[in-house]
Amino acid sequence: MSERVTEQGTDTGKIAVIHLDGVIQAGGGGVLGGGYDHQLLLDQFDHAAADPEVEGIVFRVNTPGGGVVESDEIHDKVQEVQEEYGKDVYVSMGSQAASGGYFVSAPAERIYANGQTITGSLGVIMQSFNVSELADNLGISDQTIKSGEFKDIMSATREMTDDDEEILQSIVDDAYTRFVDVIENGRDLSREEVENLADGRIYTGNQAAENGLVDDVGNLDDTIGAMKETLDRDPDVVEYERGFNMGQFFGMTAD
Amino acid sequence: MSERVTEQGTDTGKIAVIHLDGVIQAGGGGVLGGGYDHQLLLDQFDHAAADPEVEGIVFRVNTPGGGVVESDEIHDKVQEVQEEYGKDVYVSMGSQAASGGYFVSAPAERIYANGQTITGSLGVIMQSFNVSELADNLGISDQTIKSGEFKDIMSATREMTDDDEEILQSIVDDAYTRFVDVIENGRDLSREEVENLADGRIYTGNQAAENGLVDDVGNLDDTIGAMKETLDRDPDVVEYERGFNMGQFFGMTAD
Amino acid sequence: MSERVTEQGTDTGKIAVIHLDGVIQAGGGGVLGGGYDHQLLLDQFDHAAADPEVEGIVFRVNTPGGGVVESDEIHDKVQEVQEEYGKDVYVSMGSQAASGGYFVSAPAERIYANGQTITGSLGVIMQSFNVSELADNLGISDQTIKSGEFKDIMSATREMTDDDEEILQSIVDDAYTRFVDVIENGRDLSREEVENLADGRIYTGNQAAENGLVDDVGNLDDTIGAMKETLDRDPDVVEYERGFNMGQFFGMTAD
Amino acid sequence: MSERVTEQGTDTGKIAVIHLDGVIQAGGGGVLGGGYDHQLLLDQFDHAAADPEVEGIVFRVNTPGGGVVESDEIHDKVQEVQEEYGKDVYVSMGSQAASGGYFVSAPAERIYANGQTITGSLGVIMQSFNVSELADNLGISDQTIKSGEFKDIMSATREMTDDDEEILQSIVDDAYTRFVDVIENGRDLSREEVENLADGRIYTGNQAAENGLVDDVGNLDDTIGAMKETLDRDPDVVEYERGFNMGQFFGMTAD
Amino acid sequence: MSERVTEQGTDTGKIAVIHLDGVIQAGGGGVLGGGYDHQLLLDQFDHAAADPEVEGIVFRVNTPGGGVVESDEIHDKVQEVQEEYGKDVYVSMGSQAASGGYFVSAPAERIYANGQTITGSLGVIMQSFNVSELADNLGISDQTIKSGEFKDIMSATREMTDDDEEILQSIVDDAYTRFVDVIENGRDLSREEVENLADGRIYTGNQAAENGLVDDVGNLDDTIGAMKETLDRDPDVVEYERGFNMGQFFGMTAD
Amino acid sequence: MSERVTEQGTDTGKIAVIHLDGVIQAGGGGVLGGGYDHQLLLDQFDHAAADPEVEGIVFRVNTPGGGVVESDEIHDKVQEVQEEYGKDVYVSMGSQAASGGYFVSAPAERIYANGQTITGSLGVIMQSFNVSELADNLGISDQTIKSGEFKDIMSATREMTDDDEEILQSIVDDAYTRFVDVIENGRDLSREEVENLADGRIYTGNQAAENGLVDDVGNLDDTIGAMKETLDRDPDVVEYERGFNMGQFFGMTAD
Amino acid sequence: MSERVTEQGTDTGKIAVIHLDGVIQAGGGGVLGGGYDHQLLLDQFDHAAADPEVEGIVFRVNTPGGGVVESDEIHDKVQEVQEEYGKDVYVSMGSQAASGGYFVSAPAERIYANGQTITGSLGVIMQSFNVSELADNLGISDQTIKSGEFKDIMSATREMTDDDEEILQSIVDDAYTRFVDVIENGRDLSREEVENLADGRIYTGNQAAENGLVDDVGNLDDTIGAMKETLDRDPDVVEYERGFNMGQFFGMTAD
Amino acid sequence: MSERVTEQGTDTGKIAVIHLDGVIQAGGGGVLGGGYDHQLLLDQFDHAAADPEVEGIVFRVNTPGGGVVESDEIHDKVQEVQEEYGKDVYVSMGSQAASGGYFVSAPAERIYANGQTITGSLGVIMQSFNVSELADNLGISDQTIKSGEFKDIMSATREMTDDDEEILQSIVDDAYTRFVDVIENGRDLSREEVENLADGRIYTGNQAAENGLVDDVGNLDDTIGAMKETLDRDPDVVEYERGFNMGQFFGMTAD
Repeated sequence: MSERVTEQGTDTGKIAVIHLDGVIQAGGGGVLGGGYDHQLLLDQFDHAAADPEVEGIVFRVNTPGGGVVESDEIHDKVQEVQEEYGKDVYVSMGSQAASGGYFVSAPAERIYANGQTITGSLGVIMQSFNVSELADNLGISDQTIKSGEFKDIMSATREMTDDDEEILQSIVDDAYTRFVDVIENGRDLSREEVENLADGRIYTGNQAAENGLVDDVGNLDDTIGAMKETLDRDPDVVEYERGFNMGQFFGMTAD
Repeated sequence: MSERVTEQGTDTGKIAVIHLDGVIQAGGGGVLGGGYDHQLLLDQFDHAAADPEVEGIVFRVNTPGGGVVESDEIHDKVQEVQEEYGKDVYVSMGSQAASGGYFVSAPAERIYANGQTITGSLGVIMQSFNVSELADNLGISDQTIKSGEFKDIMSATREMTDDDEEILQSIVDDAYTRFVDVIENGRDLSREEVENLADGRIYTGNQAAENGLVDDVGNLDDTIGAMKETLDRDPDVVEYERGFNMGQFFGMTAD
Repeated sequence: MSERVTEQGTDTGKIAVIHLDGVIQAGGGGVLGGGYDHQLLLDQFDHAAADPEVEGIVFRVNTPGGGVVESDEIHDKVQEVQEEYGKDVYVSMGSQAASGGYFVSAPAERIYANGQTITGSLGVIMQSFNVSELADNLGISDQTIKSGEFKDIMSATREMTDDDEEILQSIVDDAYTRFVDVIENGRDLSREEVENLADGRIYTGNQAAENGLVDDVGNLDDTIGAMKETLDRDPDVVEYERGFNMGQFFGMTAD
Repeated sequence: MSERVTEQGTDTGKIAVIHLDGVIQAGGGGVLGGGYDHQLLLDQFDHAAADPEVEGIVFRVNTPGGGVVESDEIHDKVQEVQEEYGKDVYVSMGSQAASGGYFVSAPAERIYANGQTITGSLGVIMQSFNVSELADNLGISDQTIKSGEFKDIMSATREMTDDDEEILQSIVDDAYTRFVDVIENGRDLSREEVENLADGRIYTGNQAAENGLVDDVGNLDDTIGAMKETLDRDPDVVEYERGFNMGQFFGMTAD
Repeated sequence: MSERVTEQGTDTGKIAVIHLDGVIQAGGGGVLGGGYDHQLLLDQFDHAAADPEVEGIVFRVNTPGGGVVESDEIHDKVQEVQEEYGKDVYVSMGSQAASGGYFVSAPAERIYANGQTITGSLGVIMQSFNVSELADNLGISDQTIKSGEFKDIMSATREMTDDDEEILQSIVDDAYTRFVDVIENGRDLSREEVENLADGRIYTGNQAAENGLVDDVGNLDDTIGAMKETLDRDPDVVEYERGFNMGQFFGMTAD
Repeated sequence: MSERVTEQGTDTGKIAVIHLDGVIQAGGGGVLGGGYDHQLLLDQFDHAAADPEVEGIVFRVNTPGGGVVESDEIHDKVQEVQEEYGKDVYVSMGSQAASGGYFVSAPAERIYANGQTITGSLGVIMQSFNVSELADNLGISDQTIKSGEFKDIMSATREMTDDDEEILQSIVDDAYTRFVDVIENGRDLSREEVENLADGRIYTGNQAAENGLVDDVGNLDDTIGAMKETLDRDPDVVEYERGFNMGQFFGMTAD
Repeated sequence: MSERVTEQGTDTGKIAVIHLDGVIQAGGGGVLGGGYDHQLLLDQFDHAAADPEVEGIVFRVNTPGGGVVESDEIHDKVQEVQEEYGKDVYVSMGSQAASGGYFVSAPAERIYANGQTITGSLGVIMQSFNVSELADNLGISDQTIKSGEFKDIMSATREMTDDDEEILQSIVDDAYTRFVDVIENGRDLSREEVENLADGRIYTGNQAAENGLVDDVGNLDDTIGAMKETLDRDPDVVEYERGFNMGQFFGMTAD
Repeated sequence: MSERVTEQGTDTGKIAVIHLDGVIQAGGGGVLGGGYDHQLLLDQFDHAAADPEVEGIVFRVNTPGGGVVESDEIHDKVQEVQEEYGKDVYVSMGSQAASGGYFVSAPAERIYANGQTITGSLGVIMQSFNVSELADNLGISDQTIKSGEFKDIMSATREMTDDDEEILQSIVDDAYTRFVDVIENGRDLSREEVENLADGRIYTGNQAAENGLVDDVGNLDDTIGAMKETLDRDPDVVEYERGFNMGQFFGMTAD
């Protein structure tokens, strides 16, 4: 991983800016891949945590959300950097930081959003389509041999039963409880307050600043400025880049 | 960032011309990307602000608008350059500078438009399509398990409820208020005047010159000329180009 | 910009031939782009104006028209070259020089057209399609939340109201007035004559020579010949070519 | 332009063979382009006219016709070569030399066609499609704001009015008159004879030889032979080729 | 053109084998083109005619026919080689040598076909489709402004009239007469016999050998053998190849 | 196979992390292939087993399942490493480790899952589509000649018979029994408990921790930490990479 | 043509193996082409015939058949090699050697087939589709001007007449007679026996061995073995490969 | 062919592992081809047979079957290696070894399958589709001229007759008899037992181990282990790779 100074400071030390752009999901990246790269994001937090010169992290979040497990892993990293390494993380929300985007932001020491940032959408959803009627109309039928009643749950070609729904709702509820826990722990809000806010609706940054989901309205520059103020110093601001390693193509083999 | 002189002047100093072309949005650019590049645009303002030889900035705006948060970030840059660095920004509108295109222009010291520029379209809009009836006709049904009433707001497969609409309208109104504030602050207009103009309609540059949304009719050359007149000097006119950095491909790694 | 001699003359000096081919629009060109390149066209006029050896410009116009603002910028260049640099511009119309193609030709000292050139189409038009009925038939509905009555003017999914139409007609009329002004100023015609001709209909070059929109029937060679006659000299005839600059790909960076 | 000898002669001097292949239209050609290249064709005539060793030109015409203005420019070149440089042009028609293909051939000193060449189709046509009924059926409507009654003449989405038709017919008639003039002047036929022949119908080379539109039946070799006979000499036969100029790609820039 | 020996002979001299493969049409060939190349074919005949070592030509014909003018040009070359240069041409028919394929074979001294070769199809045909009813059904109408009654003959969007048909039939008949002439002249058949055979039907090589359209049944090797027998010598057998000339890409320019 | 240290330890020895990403299936990988590579996965286990410095393996499982035979082969490798080489395998489940993903995890010494991991879906399913009715509607019929009644079992174009279903159900049951055996042997659960859990339904990681299918909730870092704790040492953590072997392209041949 | 030894023998001399793979057709091959190459196949026979070291040829036939003329040419080559050069050809049939595949095998000294080889399909077929009804339904009509009744025989847009059918049937019958002749001559079967077998039906290799169409059941190795036995020697077994000749791209030109 | 050691042994000698992956078919492979390569597979058996160091072969079969002739050729190779070279072949079945996959395995000394391997599907099937009704509906008709009643057997555009069916059934039966013979010879089963098993149904590896179609349940490692046990030695395990031969592209030509 290579480091690039984006803003020269007058003091020693560094503030690391880490970007989360796009849908949160496993995999991604690679030599030619663009967009979100889960492992790279986690590595950047590890890198910043381990670098003794880094005094604070600004986490730029710009995502509509994504996978619950990947969001959870990012959440844990943010917490780890703060609790184990004692370095503050300040979140700066971009155009959207909704659902999983809020989830990963919740443990941060401070959260800044633009007044028009779309955030909220707190909660969990499972969606699928049922095409059994369409298949019937076309004259296609499904032939399924299975070992247990629920082996084809969420199949697109059979109707959802009440038992199916109960199983899936329990999974959604389980994830929702985790969501509420994370907010309750990360923010200065009671459980009741969180549950009232977490009905899935979206909020603008302004609304979120009022209801306590974010601390203040401001953009990325403002967030970096606030971090400097807290540190009471003016260190360099740096970002990380994945170097293009020729070894990925022509690597030695020690078989 | 490399600099290119587009018009040789007879005095020392520089006027920087910065172009905004295309829909305002996050991301963009990159090695092979064309079109609008949000970060590059912001960097050009930082670069011009930091260069002590630059005495004024001409901001060429040619866009139908775009994301509200990105527009806000540009707006703040324009303001920052003027207030913190004391350098005037003059806007020159191209074929269109509507909606977000006007929003980013509002804080400029002066705004010039061609008589036929399409501007205005002041306000905010959220649009989506509802395909539930189409899905019904095809025999496809939506199976949704969710944790809160509004988790699937703006879903294409269910009808919008009154509560949905109220939530979304509040978001639009919030953004609209910011829009009106920005115009009221940037232009010599009363709030009432702004609200009358900001009903979403479009204006030609001529109409906008009459109703006070722009200062004068003129093209890019006229705007540069006006800036020279204000400065009472004839400095070089420069533009910025993103250099093609081979290091993006074969960069060293300091892992 | 590099220069190519297309016709060797017997006297010193140059006549520059500048071509406008294709639909007039913003942008275009670039390393791999073909067709119309707005900035390149304007630069060619600047180049010819600034070159003291150039004694006159032949402007070959072959276009069905295009954007009103870009047409206006070309129009101003033609005027500037003549008024500020005192160099005549003679237009030679190709297969078509209609609408914006006539608009940019109007200020020229003389206009030549082939007898069968399609010109005219003087005026302005805005066209869009309304698909609301089609969407209804398919079972798709539009969900729009907006801040002002006219924010979705010209939307493809709602019917145009009388107020919409009035706003749009005022814009078209504004542009039309500019169109008529330009012709009245550029040609030896009264306003009434211009308004009678500018009802949108197309004319052949022969018809246009009769009604005064063009000065004479003739092709590019004839136009160059007429320019030589006016100058009473036989200078070289030159065209400009955009050089392929390797620096566009591997340019140095002075970040 | 480079020259290639295709038939070694026994005497000094040259006969230049120039080919017109494909639909006559503006533009074309370029580094990778194939097919018809209008400017290249005109340049070949200039080149042959200017070369004192060229004693005559054989013009091979193989085209279904094309644009009236471009046809006119070729026509004028053929005339110019003959009248100003005193060099005969003999046309050799290929598979087809119809409409514009005949127009460009008319001024030649002699015209040869194969017995089965398709020629004729003398006249002018404008064709467009009206899809208003189709749009209606689909539920799409056209929304047009315009400045003059005829600004949307030949629009695919409205019916043609009587006034439209009159305007367009006058343009067609204008071009037709030019067509008849050109034939009357170029061939040994009375105006009445031309008008009888020019009703749009096609003729074989044999029929055309009978009705006077061509002088004789014969192929390219026969035409070259006839030219040699007229010259009473056996010079080289040459063709022109556009050289591939590396400078088009890596040209120096003198900006 | 380069030469390749395909069969080493024991005597001096050469027999040239020239292949016609694919649909006969104008153009074709070029650097990357494959298939039939009209000019190349004619050049091969010229080359063989001019080479004093070539004592006879075997013309391998494998085509379903094609353009009448191009067929005529080949026909004339075959005749020229025999009459002017006194070298025999023997045709060897491949899978098919129908219509134009027979036309070009007719003047040859001898014609050999495989027993199952498809030949015949003597005559001429013009085919087009009329889609006016389809357009009506879709709601599309044709808007045509023309200068003469027959300018849109064979248009896909109007019905063919009796006059149209008469004009077209006369063209077909003209070409047919030429076809019959060519066979009558080339083969030992009376005009009546030819007209009886030339009703468009196809024949196998065996049938054609019986009815006199071909001389004998045999393949390419047999044809070459027969030529050797006639010559009473065993010269080399050669074919021609178009060399790949780097100069086509990087040719010098002597502009 | 090359080795990469991802986490520097303070003690000697290594913990190997092996990733299973994507659908389990035969084949895959190769020079340009991405995603799951069955042979590579097995080789990594062999490599880690054989390396005397490797003291334990963390197996990251992120898959919705896949082929039963391939799953079985992985299962056997996990068992072999533990029983024959005496090295513990700890599983860390990612977003999903369902069906075959659980099957390969069952023999591991310990299983960790994220609270929101989707696991379970224990059991086997065969699915196909029957398009005979669609084919009938289209007018297509199936023509089958076969040697035995069941040769076209699961054909998409005939209805499934009772005998078909019995045969297929016996195969599903056979695989299911294996599935239950594997869980019973790998986990501290009675056969009855396993059969109750293995009805195809999915569980979250939290639910699975409660019902005994996983040992504890935790992410990859937690699993590595637990392994270190068990070893009571802090060795390096390593991953394997397939080197790009030029020999695959230009290999020597010893035919 | 280059030679590759595929089986080292202990004696001097060679057995050449020549492969026919894919549909028999004219053309094919070339630099980048794959699949069947008619000329290459014939050349291989010539090459093997001319090479004095080659003592016998094994002809591997794997084709569903193809063009009758091309099949005939191969047939003649097989015969020529045996009769003129006195070298035996043994055929080894692959998966299929039907129709034309049998035709080319018939003259071989011996034919071996696998028991499950699909052979037979003796006879000739012409197939086309008539879309006149479909065209009618769509509203498209065919406009044909022709010179003789049968010029559009087998047209897809008119019904086949009785006369058409008679003409075509005579062609099929002619080819069929040739087919029967070839089998009668090549195999030890009476004409009546051949005609009974040649009703188009397919046979397995086993059935063909019984009815006399092939000599024995065996695969390629068995066929080579049988050839060795006949020769009573163990020579090398060789195959031919078309060398990639750089000269095809950059060949010298001796124009 | 190059050799790669995949498992280092402690004794001299080698066990060769040969893989059959994908559908069994003629052709395949080549420079850029992937998947199954019939000739390469046979060559590997020859190579292993001829190499005196190879003491046994493990044949990994992973295929749903394929062509009967190709299967037969593999079958014969397996038999040849065992009978002529005296080297045991042990089969290890992968995910599926059904139909032809079982056929090629039958002669092996021992067969191992995974418990969930899909095997069986013993027998033969011919399938085609009849689209005559669909063609009728569309208005397309088939025009066929043929020489014998059965020349268009299995045509998609005519109904299958009883005679057709009888012919095809006899072919299927012939192949089926061969199938049963092969199993009866290869396995320790009576003809009656084989015929009962060979009704086309599929079996799991477990079921096949019970009914005698395979010897034991086990994976590839188990099979190699069993081979070592039989040999009572621990030789190297090797696989073959097709080397990439530059000569395939730039081969010398010795024409």
